Amino acid sequence: MADSLEVPTGWELVDDSLTRRLEFGSFVSAFGFMSKVALLAEKMDHHPTWTNTYGTVEIELTTHDSGNKVGSKDVELARQINSLLES
Amino acid sequence: MADSLEVPTGWELVDDSLTRRLEFGSFVSAFGFMSKVALLAEKMDHHPTWTNTYGTVEIELTTHDSGNKVGSKDVELARQINSLLES
Amino acid sequence: MADSLEVPTGWELVDDSLTRRLEFGSFVSAFGFMSKVALLAEKMDHHPTWTNTYGTVEIELTTHDSGNKVGSKDVELARQINSLLES
Amino acid sequence: MADSLEVPTGWELVDDSLTRRLEFGSFVSAFGFMSKVALLAEKMDHHPTWTNTYGTVEIELTTHDSGNKVGSKDVELARQINSLLES
Repeated sequence: MADSLEVPTGWELVDDSLTRRLEFGSFVSAFGFMSKVALLAEKMDHHPTWTNTYGTVEIELTTHDSGNKVGSKDVELARQINSLLES
Repeated sequence: MADSLEVPTGWELVDDSLTRRLEFGSFVSAFGFMSKVALLAEKMDHHPTWTNTYGTVEIELTTHDSGNKVGSKDVELARQINSLLES
Repeated sequence: MADSLEVPTGWELVDDSLTRRLEFGSFVSAFGFMSKVALLAEKMDHHPTWTNTYGTVEIELTTHDSGNKVGSKDVELARQINSLLES
Repeated sequence: MADSLEVPTGWELVDDSLTRRLEFGSFVSAFGFMSKVALLAEKMDHHPTWTNTYGTVEIELTTHDSGNKVGSKDVELARQINSLLES
């Protein structure tokens, strides 16, 4: 991760990826959230690796173009996801 | 509408449909909500007529099988949609 | 509609909107299609007015900023929707 | 996996899960597919563990209630997913 980047609240730096694990009370809530993240990701042209089981969503953000290091788009998407969770 | 059914909070009875108009702050929020409603509707096997423009979602619920009158599934789906909005 | 714009195949010009009505065999197919269109629309920052009932999706594209006339973004989104339908 | 169950075409039995890896040409196609699977899964009340990166979707189906063995609902959901892919 470049020195000038900051890990957003709620995220962890694991193996050169920003990661966050979220728990929702139902699949409906989890997938509704994923639909919103999908829209943000496609708009940024920057897509997560993410895994879902029922109400659990695990997100990993890394930048493939820069040798799988965390870059500014990862931080930006992480922040936008945080904004979704706060609203 | 059958006499024994009650119009859920936030809904209106218009032309034999339960209707509700919702305003979200963005298309992302509106479509995230629609994705959740879609899951509920498919699970109930009872689907809305709904219109979206940007952050606005208008929902109409009626029961085609019973001559386009409001039935118990409409009331049930309206209540489930209300629950989504409260959570 | 500006003279230089062409109505894409399958679309009609109705009341200064590009419109297309689509029929899918199920709600699942219709909503899967809508999820793809939602991603395209959010990426273009140009959103449809659309109505869905079960397998039917009606789309209206117009440009609010230019006094509800059909503009180049409407034509572009209509073409991208056509591409989805062909793939 | 119970003896009477058959692994559907395109799926593999890996570690007591039915698994399938799919490649789509874009995130839009991949997520549109996921939206359809989400509707099927919620309707069956049987949900996958699935991972997505851009156009890739990996699905694992297992039945938690029966000690993470493949059960009849896994086979049924795998078949419904196959039907989506053929349509």
